[in-house]
Amino acid sequence: MENSSSSNANVSHDTLSQHGATDPGENHLTREKTAKSYTYESVIGWRRYRVLRPCRGMYHDVRRRLPYYWSDITDAFTYRTVASTIRMYFVNLLPALAYTLDMYRRTGEFFGVTEALFSSALAAMVFSIIGVQPLTIVGITGLISLFNYTIYDIVAQYDPSLYPLFMAWTGIWGAIFHWIVAVLNLCDYMRYVTDFSSESFGMYVGIIYIIKGVEELVNEFDQENATAGYLSCIIAILYFGSVYSLEKLGQSTVWQPWFRGILADYAYVFTTLFWVGFSHIPGRLQDAHISRLPVTKAFYPTQPRDWLLDFWNLPVKWIFVAVPFGFLVMLLFYYDHNVSSITAQARQFPLKKPGGFHWDFFLLGCTTFVAGILGLPLPNGLVPQAPVHTDSLTNYETKLKIIPTTEGEGTEIRRPIVEAVDVVEQRVSHFLMGLALIGTMTGPLLVVLHTMPSALFAGVFFVVGWGSIESNGIVQKLVFLMSENRFIQRDEPLLTIRRRKIWLFIGLQGLGVAATVAISQTIAAIGFPVLIILLIPLRTHLIPRWFSLRELEVMDEFTCTNKQVLASLGGTPKLPEHTRAEDWGLERQRSERRFGLKRQRAGSLKR
Amino acid sequence: MENSSSSNANVSHDTLSQHGATDPGENHLTREKTAKSYTYESVIGWRRYRVLRPCRGMYHDVRRRLPYYWSDITDAFTYRTVASTIRMYFVNLLPALAYTLDMYRRTGEFFGVTEALFSSALAAMVFSIIGVQPLTIVGITGLISLFNYTIYDIVAQYDPSLYPLFMAWTGIWGAIFHWIVAVLNLCDYMRYVTDFSSESFGMYVGIIYIIKGVEELVNEFDQENATAGYLSCIIAILYFGSVYSLEKLGQSTVWQPWFRGILADYAYVFTTLFWVGFSHIPGRLQDAHISRLPVTKAFYPTQPRDWLLDFWNLPVKWIFVAVPFGFLVMLLFYYDHNVSSITAQARQFPLKKPGGFHWDFFLLGCTTFVAGILGLPLPNGLVPQAPVHTDSLTNYETKLKIIPTTEGEGTEIRRPIVEAVDVVEQRVSHFLMGLALIGTMTGPLLVVLHTMPSALFAGVFFVVGWGSIESNGIVQKLVFLMSENRFIQRDEPLLTIRRRKIWLFIGLQGLGVAATVAISQTIAAIGFPVLIILLIPLRTHLIPRWFSLRELEVMDEFTCTNKQVLASLGGTPKLPEHTRAEDWGLERQRSERRFGLKRQRAGSLKR
Repeated sequence: MENSSSSNANVSHDTLSQHGATDPGENHLTREKTAKSYTYESVIGWRRYRVLRPCRGMYHDVRRRLPYYWSDITDAFTYRTVASTIRMYFVNLLPALAYTLDMYRRTGEFFGVTEALFSSALAAMVFSIIGVQPLTIVGITGLISLFNYTIYDIVAQYDPSLYPLFMAWTGIWGAIFHWIVAVLNLCDYMRYVTDFSSESFGMYVGIIYIIKGVEELVNEFDQENATAGYLSCIIAILYFGSVYSLEKLGQSTVWQPWFRGILADYAYVFTTLFWVGFSHIPGRLQDAHISRLPVTKAFYPTQPRDWLLDFWNLPVKWIFVAVPFGFLVMLLFYYDHNVSSITAQARQFPLKKPGGFHWDFFLLGCTTFVAGILGLPLPNGLVPQAPVHTDSLTNYETKLKIIPTTEGEGTEIRRPIVEAVDVVEQRVSHFLMGLALIGTMTGPLLVVLHTMPSALFAGVFFVVGWGSIESNGIVQKLVFLMSENRFIQRDEPLLTIRRRKIWLFIGLQGLGVAATVAISQTIAAIGFPVLIILLIPLRTHLIPRWFSLRELEVMDEFTCTNKQVLASLGGTPKLPEHTRAEDWGLERQRSERRFGLKRQRAGSLKR
Repeated sequence: MENSSSSNANVSHDTLSQHGATDPGENHLTREKTAKSYTYESVIGWRRYRVLRPCRGMYHDVRRRLPYYWSDITDAFTYRTVASTIRMYFVNLLPALAYTLDMYRRTGEFFGVTEALFSSALAAMVFSIIGVQPLTIVGITGLISLFNYTIYDIVAQYDPSLYPLFMAWTGIWGAIFHWIVAVLNLCDYMRYVTDFSSESFGMYVGIIYIIKGVEELVNEFDQENATAGYLSCIIAILYFGSVYSLEKLGQSTVWQPWFRGILADYAYVFTTLFWVGFSHIPGRLQDAHISRLPVTKAFYPTQPRDWLLDFWNLPVKWIFVAVPFGFLVMLLFYYDHNVSSITAQARQFPLKKPGGFHWDFFLLGCTTFVAGILGLPLPNGLVPQAPVHTDSLTNYETKLKIIPTTEGEGTEIRRPIVEAVDVVEQRVSHFLMGLALIGTMTGPLLVVLHTMPSALFAGVFFVVGWGSIESNGIVQKLVFLMSENRFIQRDEPLLTIRRRKIWLFIGLQGLGVAATVAISQTIAAIGFPVLIILLIPLRTHLIPRWFSLRELEVMDEFTCTNKQVLASLGGTPKLPEHTRAEDWGLERQRSERRFGLKRQRAGSLKR
């Protein structure tokens, strides 16, 4: 057995078997019971209305997961946990710093590196210790950065000094809306999210990230000089090329599996160390004076203020102005956090422990509240990084599939098929990553952060952004439409439907993406969550009129298909007549059957 | 029939049939006769010694080709000729200018753009009109540039003012040695060249080109400033990426064949126009003041001198010092020109008209003489570009090969197989390209050349250099050795021999490459042709002691296998017992059988 994570794989498997999912007895029964009891099938009267039974989802979430708590710690003693901690530290920290760099400049230097680290560490502590699903990594996203500086632009039209307190109230109201949603079981509606909207969202995120990367480089020209600007472009391009190549090599069939595993696990680590070092080579490179990550005094806020904001001093008028902003925060997180949680538990990962959306969304309300009153950027589920966490904990095995052909002797096709053997489901990697983030807030490590060139973060934006675009279903359909027909395999499901329907489908997605990207560039940017959320009813109510059921089965799929996940969302969604969840996503099913899984790259949104 | 060059393909085919190879009657018989009569088989006595029968090769070369002369003009009326002319103009001109840029700086500004254009145009005129094989493109190579500035370094130690006349005499002596080789039928020994040395040579050329590209960029930092330097790096990287991506797209199966054909034909054209334009965008880009191609007055030499050098005024001592230099020029061209001619007539091209090495080498002596006394860089066969010319004249057809598998219904493998239908063999594209080069020497077009940034030429170096490395057999064997064994197809011939023998084979090649690259960086660089030529006897005399016949059959192959070509080289080489030419190159044969031909990319050396 050759395994992409070397011999420790077996150990982890055994550990899991002893403590985890296959544990018989009481725990197992409890889960089964709550999985069955949190459902609205064959329920009549007022009980059918989910909102009328407050806290029911949260209660079942906790009851379902609690029996696994001890195994969440004991399962962690494998090499996977170490690799995962290191990888996630970089994959979480680098983009967070990148967004912060952007936020710092555009919010009157209110949010700085300390705030970003504090916020990430806070989220990591809360979700790793008392979250129901510790696989979902929570931190600073590019969208909250967009949100924060758009609010700054709006508030600054009146009085920039109001901004900190206004943000505090946005957080407070946001938290209240979170709690309402969690209590009223409204997360259940996430089960209706399909690839139609989650692919659009992934594409939108990818485009925004690439724009951010370009802005970062443009800023280098403006703040520093042309020399620094051009050198930054080179570093960003080569950083992107390095991470991309290492990750591709990690997925190839060169060298031995253990070596490829190292490349896949530590692509970010190696590349970052190399290019930070490169930017410090004395002589021409150092003389270019490219800008570095700005840091401030350890453990103190960036601005001269106390950590706790005096939010009670905001004029009452502004407190109420913050209500719609709080609502929009909730709307954004409702989609963003839950989708990231779903992708962290996507079907291709053989998860055995249950998740819980209601409880985690309630917790997200708490972190929103605390981050709000402390003047931190609000953390939430990281769409591109959450599935990377699960991936980093998965023991993959690259198997050999031999397909005999009729070409003659010895001419069978030898195809590598990647299979996920098991996932080391535990809380420790998330927790250790949080500890590392706290450690990074100390003086000496802040100095290390200061050595990183801003250009590197532009490279991070490109990697994460392009990862989200390259693997996107919209792009895959576009490639299909552009391919010369005769070279397409005949069992390709897209061949069974009309081409113009595919164009229409990705055209509608493209329209949604274009609208959201466009609005993000204006002061109306805070409205973008509304547009994203609107894609869900568009899909459920309008799309079925324009496409046949068969067409949708081929092109679309429910994003959330894992049984463990659906248990927390109150059962499978109401499907059109005569279909089962398995009838959907024919495109993906065929690909997995023939080529196995694709390993998660940082930034690629898994379907 | 879907054809990569649209509907004109059929026309060209018909034209060819009427006038060309299948023409019955006298012409055909003449060729057959000379193909048979220029042989040394079953010849006894002093007639066995090739050198004792002067001019025999040249005579048969001309007699064999002459009957096709008229068809060389009439066959040209197809679209392929147009596409070929445009493509070759760029593929010939751009590297020539790149090398000139290098030479200009390093020969005390003696060789400039005018000289390079004059030399290229002269060669194009001579070889397109009276060359036996007009497919072989002759022009300025990177190696003659290396040669020229190394001689400058040597002469400058005594008296730099001697340089022009010394170069004239190097050319004169070189020409004399060329004529001797041609008259004594010595080109015949080229038939013993195998991939062992031609792959090493290709790798050497690739590495030298990439070094040249880097030097070009470093020069930008030194001559201009850091800003210009970094911007130049960006332009070079992106130019490389653009040409590379367009050529890869041209070889893929997206879009329609005619559109892919356009991409493959004009990748250089589009990219060059785009990036030249880019470098002139007003604002930051223009302010960087990157250096541009230096040009001088139209039709006048770069230095204030007459075109004809007063070579009779060189001190007699120096005239004799030039003898070994002339000999080394001949040695370089013997290998470089003949290999480029062989690759232009490689087996994968279905050529029907015969070539002639002796006559063309005699002509090369003439151009060497003229270029020498006019103070031009000496032109010779362009290794990476010559096969591109034949490729640009080939009508390819991408066929569909369906391989049934046992995976289930509709799961057959659909594989694109590229086949070369025919080649538009004619003189017109070469001639028109020469005319275009002369046109470029006029004032207005020199101004256009001046708009090209030097950085672009660094990009050209990278494209040509990497093309020669990526497709190289050394790299392919290295990839084989690094691949995980179980995913390698079982019919891979390399699996039948021991791995350490493969390591030894590419190790010896690598040693040859390393030695040549190393010597090229020193003042002993003029000696590098000796090292390259030495690889031939190493292969014929030492290698067979260390490898079994079977191992060599798998790993090596005679570079020259086309029957038309061997006819001019005095018949097939003496092979080891019980083998035929077809027994060699099992690796290549298998690849072609299964995947068809790979289209020629600029820079890739075809085996």
